[in-house]
Formats: sequence, structure tokens, C-alpha cells
Amino acid sequence: MSGLAAAAEAVLAANDAFYTALNAKDFGAMDALWAREVPVACVHPNWNALAGRECVMESWRAILDNPEQPRVFTGAAEAHLLDTVAYVLCRELVAGGALTATNVFTQEDGEWRLTLHHSSPVSV
Amino acid sequence: MSGLAAAAEAVLAANDAFYTALNAKDFGAMDALWAREVPVACVHPNWNALAGRECVMESWRAILDNPEQPRVFTGAAEAHLLDTVAYVLCRELVAGGALTATNVFTQEDGEWRLTLHHSSPVSV
Repeated sequence: MSGLAAAAEAVLAANDAFYTALNAKDFGAMDALWAREVPVACVHPNWNALAGRECVMESWRAILDNPEQPRVFTGAAEAHLLDTVAYVLCRELVAGGALTATNVFTQEDGEWRLTLHHSSPVSV
Repeated sequence: MSGLAAAAEAVLAANDAFYTALNAKDFGAMDALWAREVPVACVHPNWNALAGRECVMESWRAILDNPEQPRVFTGAAEAHLLDTVAYVLCRELVAGGALTATNVFTQEDGEWRLTLHHSSPVSV
């Protein structure tokens, strides 16, 4: 496997780990997936952007603690490599609603970690 | 001015240039703002992701050619630097509707160029 293909696979694995942590409602795993050395930000569906690690992780704690938070099905993930940064485009299906997500990852300690997540409903 | 502050200012100038090109309906300026050496992708409000330069620029041509495309007001832009990649969070106001945008830029030929634009309505 080429270096590029291996990197794309690692980014897609990090993307999968993000949705696994979300569906397992595992805050520790979610927290570990977000970068610590660069700024992080998050746009949940229909929300304004949240900027800053504390604020972003607080939003995930509320989402993961919510017993009514439905399972997020995901698919059609494509990784696009820039350099030490990569982004994934993927679909999300939440309670029957279709969304599209852009997840930006950065390399930290040899791991791909989230620096930006933006999910929004698809209605066109 | 520190190197970081100068970089943030340059990223915000590129972000402004993007909205200026959009409002001027200037396809040449818009085309020049998008990266050529790395993958590009775009999520227009309520759309699925468009991946690939040809497809993304075709969408901008349709938007810029649309005589009914309203002006996009923008503000509250914040630049966050990763490395040779940076992202901007900003608000958009289009025909009275509030949106939030994440614009990811990459350095190419000494310029900050768009690699990813994701805009989505805010309703919460």
C-alpha cells in the first residue's frame, strides 16, 4: 500500500472512531479524538459554530449524556489529504434525516485528531 | 506584527476576497481563490457535498450566473491556524436567513486558497 493510501486509510479509521465514540456515548473516547495542540471548532446541525476545546467538548458531553440522542448512521466517507491535515466528507443519517458532514483532521502524536466537525441537514 | 498575527490577517483577507468575488459575481476571481494542487470540496446550504474542482467550480458558475442570487453579508470571521492549513469560522446572512460557514484554506504559491467551504443554515 502506498504512503498516501495508508494515510487515507488512517484518516478514515479516525473518522470511523469518531462515529463509534458518538454511538457508544463514550465521552473519554470522544475527548481523546479531538486535537489538543491546535484550535478546534464544531458546527452541530442547525447550530452556530462552537469554537474552543472547552466549549466543543461541553457540547459533546451534553449530546452523549442525552438518553434520547439517536444513533448516527454514516457512510460514503471519502478522505482527502492536504499535508499534515486531511478532511473527510461523509453522509450521516440521524432519526431518518439526511445530513452531510465535513470532518477535518490534523496529525498529533502520530494520530489523526479532529480539529473541525461540521454537520448540516441535506434537503435539496 | 507577529508571524502568527500576519498569517491570520492574510487568511482573513482571503476569506474576504471569497465573499467579494461571490457578491461581485466574478467567476475569474472566484476560480483563482480555489486551490489547484490539493483536493477541493464544497457544501452549499442544504446541499450534499460536492467534491472535485470541476464540480465545485461548476456550482459556483451556476450561482454567480444566477441573476436572483442575493448578496451574502458576512461577519464575525475568526481565523484559526493549523500549519500550512487554516480555517475561518464566519457568519453569513443571505436574504434574511442566518448561516454559519467553515472555510478551510491551504497555502499555495504563497497564497491562502480555499480547499473546503461548508455553509449551513442556523435555526437553533
